Amino acid sequence: MYEKKLLLIPGPTMIPPRVLRAMAVPPVGHRSKGFSQIIREVSQDLKKIFQTDNDVYMLTASGTGAMEAAVTNFINPGDKVLVLVNGKFGDRFAKINARYGAEVIRKDFELGQPADPQVVKEVLTNDKEQEIKAVFVQQNETSTGILNDIKAIKEAMGGHPALLIVDSISGMAVSNFPVDEWGADVVVAGSQKAFMIPPGLAFISVSEKAWKVNENCKNFNFYFDLKAARKNLAKDTTPYTPATSLILGLRESLNILLAEGLENIYRKQEMFKEMVREAVRALGLELLVKDDKYAAAAITAVKVPEGIEWKDLNNLLNNEFNVEVAGGQDELKGKIFRIGHIGYVQDMDLLQAIAALEMALYKLGFLKELGVGVKKCQEVILKYKEEGK
Amino acid sequence: MYEKKLLLIPGPTMIPPRVLRAMAVPPVGHRSKGFSQIIREVSQDLKKIFQTDNDVYMLTASGTGAMEAAVTNFINPGDKVLVLVNGKFGDRFAKINARYGAEVIRKDFELGQPADPQVVKEVLTNDKEQEIKAVFVQQNETSTGILNDIKAIKEAMGGHPALLIVDSISGMAVSNFPVDEWGADVVVAGSQKAFMIPPGLAFISVSEKAWKVNENCKNFNFYFDLKAARKNLAKDTTPYTPATSLILGLRESLNILLAEGLENIYRKQEMFKEMVREAVRALGLELLVKDDKYAAAAITAVKVPEGIEWKDLNNLLNNEFNVEVAGGQDELKGKIFRIGHIGYVQDMDLLQAIAALEMALYKLGFLKELGVGVKKCQEVILKYKEEGK
Repeated sequence: MYEKKLLLIPGPTMIPPRVLRAMAVPPVGHRSKGFSQIIREVSQDLKKIFQTDNDVYMLTASGTGAMEAAVTNFINPGDKVLVLVNGKFGDRFAKINARYGAEVIRKDFELGQPADPQVVKEVLTNDKEQEIKAVFVQQNETSTGILNDIKAIKEAMGGHPALLIVDSISGMAVSNFPVDEWGADVVVAGSQKAFMIPPGLAFISVSEKAWKVNENCKNFNFYFDLKAARKNLAKDTTPYTPATSLILGLRESLNILLAEGLENIYRKQEMFKEMVREAVRALGLELLVKDDKYAAAAITAVKVPEGIEWKDLNNLLNNEFNVEVAGGQDELKGKIFRIGHIGYVQDMDLLQAIAALEMALYKLGFLKELGVGVKKCQEVILKYKEEGK
Repeated sequence: MYEKKLLLIPGPTMIPPRVLRAMAVPPVGHRSKGFSQIIREVSQDLKKIFQTDNDVYMLTASGTGAMEAAVTNFINPGDKVLVLVNGKFGDRFAKINARYGAEVIRKDFELGQPADPQVVKEVLTNDKEQEIKAVFVQQNETSTGILNDIKAIKEAMGGHPALLIVDSISGMAVSNFPVDEWGADVVVAGSQKAFMIPPGLAFISVSEKAWKVNENCKNFNFYFDLKAARKNLAKDTTPYTPATSLILGLRESLNILLAEGLENIYRKQEMFKEMVREAVRALGLELLVKDDKYAAAAITAVKVPEGIEWKDLNNLLNNEFNVEVAGGQDELKGKIFRIGHIGYVQDMDLLQAIAALEMALYKLGFLKELGVGVKKCQEVILKYKEEGK
């Protein structure tokens, strides 16, 4: 129906009209006084979202660019790094480190299982010479919908001097992550997730401890050189031309997010997660992440049931019921699908998506009864509304 | 949730982003060659929607302005007119006629009942001197959700020379109305209904027979003088400054409507009507219009159940569940509410509205079970999809 598709992939996410309007303005000069003021304002607001006193830099790149910056500004060739992998994006951190000559100690966890802090403890305890320079991990692994416990991982690191470098691209402004309190040194986020703006901007915070490590790091990248970003942000500007219209959109979305308040956002995301998980269970489908505690609040991965082809299900969802969800990636391709519930989403959108999923599964012969998942959604919505009083 | 409210009143209706973008352009000169071309294009397309070879004029006014034009261009003081009334807008035709000195023969029908063609036949048969100049009627009475049978009313008029003047403000592009084939002389429509643009434009078609009557009519209005509109449209322009941005939006929405095709639109509207009526019945609520045949495809009026206050229900729908429907008007105030299903609406929007209605009625203690109406919606959606193959 024209442009009414419900886009529920784990980013790019839907965009509020307010943000679209804020971007639909004539181009602005990126070195103007007015724009510097906007950079200052937005940078301050980003620190509130990251719950940090560290600088948060804006890179004109998608999330992977900031992941690369999180490696190349702190890791030298030959450095040992511990990379925790429980999905495609953990794998990507390992690949970037390897590309730049790091010696990668890779710890894989079963898909759908969280990274085990006990493993971190063991590896670092055995690192008597303290050669490991950093621990890399996702807060929210988008490919499986796992929420890793960053606080527990930091605690497991004990007194080891390694940096904690976290990809929170789909976690920031979704699940609580007080960067300073939990002691994460480098944290990465992306614009096209909970920030509700199009792809093209990434954010990265750097602790004092990380800056000390950076002093002895030969910067490989020119474009992603964070020293240049720091020098320029002190003057309310960026080293190279920033994505100006995205930053105007970001200013508007940060206003929306901060007006809503982080606590309210986290609670809303928990409701979304519960709605989708309860509904999916009621339909007799299997969740990839079994334990609610480690299930992401941003996205829910569901196993494609026996006897159903993902492409048939996806085709019905898209073309008959106007809902776009995401498939599985790499080895999970065809085996799972992922319902995104971040960005400009409301409870009724997810209810609609579940209704669509029911109708598609009904047409495919998997479901015999309609309305069962929707009813669960309604119950969860009413429960949260009741508690909210 | 920011701007995600589902607006399901019987107009102003929701607007497609394509149309919003078409209107968000710098002002255009209304006497420019380029704009004349747009007027020509839009006027031709309006004739396709009206299914007429008559001119269709655009008035910069809301629907009531065009209703006034439909009186003052054809009726002189002292003229007898027959006005069929089964709701607020029938009453409005009677009031306008009375204001301009017509002698109104008013025939009221029970609220929720269609205008009876037999009554028309009787009145006109008894009008031996053929003094009655026109029959006024709504195709779709928005206040009650009644669809009057225009074809049958025309047939009931037999050989009587009275004009048939129809308010199709909420009927045009919703339910079939072949203006020429059915022999309606003057037909009125409005922008903020099925045309999916904001209020401020109205449309009126005039038959050759009506123009003959107009020759002997002293035009009361200056602004709504259709002679001036006809003279100007022949030169692809308007007598007075038109609402240029609305016309740019109209051009886009006509492209959308004609690409979808009238047959498909009527069918979709029948599905909407069936979804809402079946769901409402399943919830144990009472419909104002009992007979499906005479139920409007644009809007459904539902009785507020015993023991429930409309303002409580409305408050929940709006503030808790982000859905805006309309209340009753005049003597139906507090007694009914009306779910609009015209304009930029899709099946899943109505499913969402029914889910919201269920939750609100559950909270108010009227419903004991959730999901019952939603399931009906799903069944009707699947039925239409199956038939559409």
